[in-house]
Amino acid sequence: MKSIISLALVSAAVSLAMPAQAQFAKPEDAIKYRKSALTVMSTHFGRVAGMANGRIPFNAASAAENAAIAEMASKLPWAAFGEGTGTGETRAKPEIWTDNAKFKANAEKMQAEMTKLVAATKTVNIDTIKVAAGSVGSACKACHDDFRKE
Amino acid sequence: MKSIISLALVSAAVSLAMPAQAQFAKPEDAIKYRKSALTVMSTHFGRVAGMANGRIPFNAASAAENAAIAEMASKLPWAAFGEGTGTGETRAKPEIWTDNAKFKANAEKMQAEMTKLVAATKTVNIDTIKVAAGSVGSACKACHDDFRKE
Repeated sequence: MKSIISLALVSAAVSLAMPAQAQFAKPEDAIKYRKSALTVMSTHFGRVAGMANGRIPFNAASAAENAAIAEMASKLPWAAFGEGTGTGETRAKPEIWTDNAKFKANAEKMQAEMTKLVAATKTVNIDTIKVAAGSVGSACKACHDDFRKE
Repeated sequence: MKSIISLALVSAAVSLAMPAQAQFAKPEDAIKYRKSALTVMSTHFGRVAGMANGRIPFNAASAAENAAIAEMASKLPWAAFGEGTGTGETRAKPEIWTDNAKFKANAEKMQAEMTKLVAATKTVNIDTIKVAAGSVGSACKACHDDFRKE
């Protein structure tokens, strides 16, 4: 458990120390990277959500580990949403850049909810985890509704 | 620095506690996931390698953080190479399953070299980082040569 707390700390440090400007040679590299980070995140979050809704048998250690990986991954995509990365193999809506403050607020809200989910998994109480997983899911959906094409 | 050491510890814990059997509903989900984890890994490793070979200005904090994320990601792909995931949108060669012991040894070698790279970045010595990054690159290449189609 202590190591998972440290993972949260290092996640925070990483997101602060990394330059905001995207470090990608080509827009398609940024697009591929951010989709990959979101796939990793949603795979691991999906396992916690699956436990929360009863699709997957509850296992406290697995819930904590999957939440920790999802939280780590939740820090990564945003640096790859630089200007000029809105076309190509992406469902990104132009609003990401025209209403960037709102997009950033959405991204931060989701990361905050993911951090709360990590804390919830440490309670080993499925009802607490259920509430936290629901909040993460809502944060995902809110952003997809406004900033992702069908 | 202490938190990065903890990240390494949690990475080790994660890989041990997670069931070896893939937790994917469909083979294509496993393929998408493992490619995503490898993309995240190679993006972050690529930044350290870029510093090692002079393409990117050396920044010790950035090297350490990118190595830590790459190491975390290096633990993830392997559970997604289950039986029956060798066809579709993948360059995986059949040898992954017919010579699985060698594939696993390759995967473990790469993870071990990535852990050494994390240690190397803590020395803040670019020559030490250069050697470690070279070893990671060799481990990547060795596995691709034998187990990935052109």
